[in-house]
Amino acid sequence: MKTIDFYFDFSSPYGYLASERIDELAARHGYTVAWHPILLGAVFKITGAVPLIEPRLKGSYYRRDFARSARFHGVPFRLPQPFPVATVAAARAFLWLQDRDARQAHAFAHLCFRAYFVDGLNIAEPEQVLALAERMGVDRGALAGALGGAEIKERLRTEVDGAIARGVCGSPFFIVGDEPFWGVDRLPQLERWLQTGGF
Amino acid sequence: MKTIDFYFDFSSPYGYLASERIDELAARHGYTVAWHPILLGAVFKITGAVPLIEPRLKGSYYRRDFARSARFHGVPFRLPQPFPVATVAAARAFLWLQDRDARQAHAFAHLCFRAYFVDGLNIAEPEQVLALAERMGVDRGALAGALGGAEIKERLRTEVDGAIARGVCGSPFFIVGDEPFWGVDRLPQLERWLQTGGF
Repeated sequence: MKTIDFYFDFSSPYGYLASERIDELAARHGYTVAWHPILLGAVFKITGAVPLIEPRLKGSYYRRDFARSARFHGVPFRLPQPFPVATVAAARAFLWLQDRDARQAHAFAHLCFRAYFVDGLNIAEPEQVLALAERMGVDRGALAGALGGAEIKERLRTEVDGAIARGVCGSPFFIVGDEPFWGVDRLPQLERWLQTGGF
Repeated sequence: MKTIDFYFDFSSPYGYLASERIDELAARHGYTVAWHPILLGAVFKITGAVPLIEPRLKGSYYRRDFARSARFHGVPFRLPQPFPVATVAAARAFLWLQDRDARQAHAFAHLCFRAYFVDGLNIAEPEQVLALAERMGVDRGALAGALGGAEIKERLRTEVDGAIARGVCGSPFFIVGDEPFWGVDRLPQLERWLQTGGF
């Protein structure tokens, strides 16, 4: 099966927009999508980047562009407070679910993104992540136990290191074969790539 | 007449790609384009940004994305050496020409971008800029005299300060009314904006 690797941070607005579009785009061309939560903080340590809304001039541009890009893509969006947030708990929960039920993990990812970027829930708080998982019928106690454990911590670190080793330098980031695409604004190039097999 | 303000640095690959597309896009919707060369170095002092190809991970991504984005837009492109370069001479020459013959300044901008991104001429060197202008029939001596003068230096500084005051934080950057669009990858949003009057 042909696969698009989709890397994202749960605190990334453009990652959220991409999460609402990528499955449909992939399906149109006979691809499936492998979802990979990462931690932008780890990437930024290497690239020297800072959160988009921090720099003078850029910060106010991005606030406007987030909202307009959401309207452009027809996706509901409200910039949450606080923003950005640490997404360790959400990413670990995703991986724990994925090892048990990939479809449930996928549904959880959508729930988590929408909880943050539509409902403004602070997904940095493990309690919020647990509540979201519980809503889906996940055993809250089992997940809570796993989130604090060494195993899932190591699992996420391995995932993030693997992403960086593949050149992932932001969110959303897509890889098809060896070809990298960074940004929700690269979806048109990604789609042409799928259509043509490379250009 | 309805106008799109188009800000760019002559050393910006995405600015070059935009320069090959913006006039046609604007004309389709009854707009004209006002071209504004700026100096990214002055912008970067405020935003803290660094040239795209410098950071680890990002650098290799951008090299690939420049070339692929050029193919995507159907524009010839070769990453020049050295890259990036200072574009003070090119920007000053553009402004000097614009005060005398706006059409000639526009043609010079295309010539300058292509000289750098297709032919690999180092447009940081005033001699190269003078040679390009001379090819168009410009009086080389008059331009050479102007490039070293205080007047055009001040003129460019005012232009760059004005751009920053309007929130310009990168290249290419477009403003329609009060709405800012940053990046050649925002052309689809810009076009929808022109079509709909805002969304």
